[in-house]
Amino acid sequence: MGMFDKPILVFQTDFTYAEGAVSSMYGVVKTVDRELEIFDGTHQIPQYDTWSASYRLYQSLQFWPKGTIYVSVVDPGVGTARKACVAKTVDGYYIVTPDNGALTHVKKYIGIEAVREIDETVNRLQSTRGTAIFHGRDLFGYTAARLASGIIDFEGVGPEYSVDEIVEHEILEPTVEPKHVKGIFEINDPNFGNLWTNIPLEKFEEAGFQYGDMVNVKITYEGETAFEDTVLFHKSFGFAKKGDPMVYNNELMKVAMAVSQGSFCKKYNLSYGPEWEVEFTI
Amino acid sequence: MGMFDKPILVFQTDFTYAEGAVSSMYGVVKTVDRELEIFDGTHQIPQYDTWSASYRLYQSLQFWPKGTIYVSVVDPGVGTARKACVAKTVDGYYIVTPDNGALTHVKKYIGIEAVREIDETVNRLQSTRGTAIFHGRDLFGYTAARLASGIIDFEGVGPEYSVDEIVEHEILEPTVEPKHVKGIFEINDPNFGNLWTNIPLEKFEEAGFQYGDMVNVKITYEGETAFEDTVLFHKSFGFAKKGDPMVYNNELMKVAMAVSQGSFCKKYNLSYGPEWEVEFTI
Amino acid sequence: MGMFDKPILVFQTDFTYAEGAVSSMYGVVKTVDRELEIFDGTHQIPQYDTWSASYRLYQSLQFWPKGTIYVSVVDPGVGTARKACVAKTVDGYYIVTPDNGALTHVKKYIGIEAVREIDETVNRLQSTRGTAIFHGRDLFGYTAARLASGIIDFEGVGPEYSVDEIVEHEILEPTVEPKHVKGIFEINDPNFGNLWTNIPLEKFEEAGFQYGDMVNVKITYEGETAFEDTVLFHKSFGFAKKGDPMVYNNELMKVAMAVSQGSFCKKYNLSYGPEWEVEFTI
Repeated sequence: MGMFDKPILVFQTDFTYAEGAVSSMYGVVKTVDRELEIFDGTHQIPQYDTWSASYRLYQSLQFWPKGTIYVSVVDPGVGTARKACVAKTVDGYYIVTPDNGALTHVKKYIGIEAVREIDETVNRLQSTRGTAIFHGRDLFGYTAARLASGIIDFEGVGPEYSVDEIVEHEILEPTVEPKHVKGIFEINDPNFGNLWTNIPLEKFEEAGFQYGDMVNVKITYEGETAFEDTVLFHKSFGFAKKGDPMVYNNELMKVAMAVSQGSFCKKYNLSYGPEWEVEFTI
Repeated sequence: MGMFDKPILVFQTDFTYAEGAVSSMYGVVKTVDRELEIFDGTHQIPQYDTWSASYRLYQSLQFWPKGTIYVSVVDPGVGTARKACVAKTVDGYYIVTPDNGALTHVKKYIGIEAVREIDETVNRLQSTRGTAIFHGRDLFGYTAARLASGIIDFEGVGPEYSVDEIVEHEILEPTVEPKHVKGIFEINDPNFGNLWTNIPLEKFEEAGFQYGDMVNVKITYEGETAFEDTVLFHKSFGFAKKGDPMVYNNELMKVAMAVSQGSFCKKYNLSYGPEWEVEFTI
Repeated sequence: MGMFDKPILVFQTDFTYAEGAVSSMYGVVKTVDRELEIFDGTHQIPQYDTWSASYRLYQSLQFWPKGTIYVSVVDPGVGTARKACVAKTVDGYYIVTPDNGALTHVKKYIGIEAVREIDETVNRLQSTRGTAIFHGRDLFGYTAARLASGIIDFEGVGPEYSVDEIVEHEILEPTVEPKHVKGIFEINDPNFGNLWTNIPLEKFEEAGFQYGDMVNVKITYEGETAFEDTVLFHKSFGFAKKGDPMVYNNELMKVAMAVSQGSFCKKYNLSYGPEWEVEFTI
């Protein structure tokens, strides 16, 4: 097999790049098989935030070539009884991750065909077996490398278990009525300060909202109003005046909010999660 | 063609690596052509700062192999009428970028031979055509990948337009007299807190300044004095006492200022831009 | 030679990724030899901190394939008389670095077989010879690329000098008695806020400490008590209650302290260095 017959490995973690952890983890991969290609997904998932890990997987996985192996290590339960697993999606990707909620969005929106628990007696770096706290290096990265290089196949990961047993976070659905749509902010863009709702553009348009509309927006946090204004709904940021809030269709075809050339989160002190409800009317 | 016959892709953006955007963008590239090599330029260009994007291109491009394709996505006007383009430099590099000032320094100091507007009807990822806000993934990265892989040639990017039409920022020139040179700080080193002037070392030396000189430095912000002192001009930081300001010749052969093992910007509360004038006398 | 016959290059610096420095440095490598593989170690070593540089080398190097060339550029003395060198370890790795203490841990715990001073008349990028402040790009990266590509061999780096002359930081040893072990915090995990002692797990266990024990911990800073409590010693973070401090065995088989799902450094305002002593008793 040539190097391009082997799947790409993409890593996302909450390790940051501040010290030697990512380097050690990638070194193990290249020691298993020098030919493997490695990419950074992100190493800045908020610490211990398995919801964000799940969302980022769902956001990015689909843009990589079929067969890509995505390794996700956000692992508050490292060293304890939580399962370490490899999931195979219905469209041919692999995800190597602790089974702690990180598969939530991919399972729901893409679909998981099968899942296997990593057998630590086989698929664990032996030279570091005295330490139990760095499974990114010793278990997840190592197993992913063995799978990518063809040393093991999917069956070789370890025993299969039921897809129904996969640990999931609850996903809330929006309510859609004519000219009235209600949902939550389910994630942010931490860099630009945008907030993304759980409302698909398609549903929003079916409810009668169109690009160019001025839309009434009410945001509440635990029932208290946090933002209330009439703002433009349009295709991209440049259509609003610099500094103005707006509603737009984001990169995953969901309704989102931003401030043109500013931060919606910071300007209005907003965030995301099930407590952050947003209501749109025209 | 083998993988090394295809140009390297280098990306610079203001996305940061905090979430899944860079991953999605790179995934698209590898989906176009698995063999393409991708490097991070930086993903920490200050947000919407097309001047910095232009300077960083000029700073780094020349060190990559001829033929390298540099993708720059700092794009406050995404989704609006600004042109998306590919420029070809006189020395054989390609730059894929919104035409919004990001080509300023390369055009002036290196030279652009030709520029073409990206034809979105051909060179746009079709599966995401409902969204208008992530051209790094859907347009710039995708087009760069097609160009690198040989799917399109430079003509295949889209219609040519005049190099004279390229959007440019104003570049200020220093004034050089014997023993008296005046310029601006045009950019910083955000990590070490150094400030880089627009004064070439060559002009500085012609004006009579030499390594080892004690130089009078006056910095003004909008006419108000912000720093005034006599400091050492030398080849490198280690020649000054730790904590002392100094004048040195930077990595692009321009006169710059630093604090030895400290931050010149932070220590004296200084920054860069046309309002920041600096005057050197001996 | 094919690309996989050439060693991998891994870079660690204190440059951050905020501007074009890393890009320029990597561009030089690919210009020397397009086939070379480059990885980020970390670019967030604390500025000018040659102790941390040394520790991160020791932490990560061993996980890369034999033959890997690790380039470390934390260089407060750039441009002055400090030596630029390439060290060869007893187990077959190469380290390219200023000789300023960065080789301390690798020399002591792994062993250095030979060291050579980089001959700048040969192994220096000629096009930038007027500037003296960016040896990462012009000297270290360039030399490492030439070595990896086979343009020079180890002898071609420059003149050998005695391993005994290598600049070293002092490494403090713990004192180990039955049920009483005393050491220092010698480094941190800056992301998760953990602190790592200089006490090997093996010694700790020999002294009678076992997983599951409640351990008395006293931490002093310059003799003043900074932390004093009885905490759990266990295999991994998940065994302690969220928010509780604990003692654990870290990824390098040394005794370390953490707060479960929190930051031990921030919660108790602690740091590392020879002034930070820690005493364990049962």
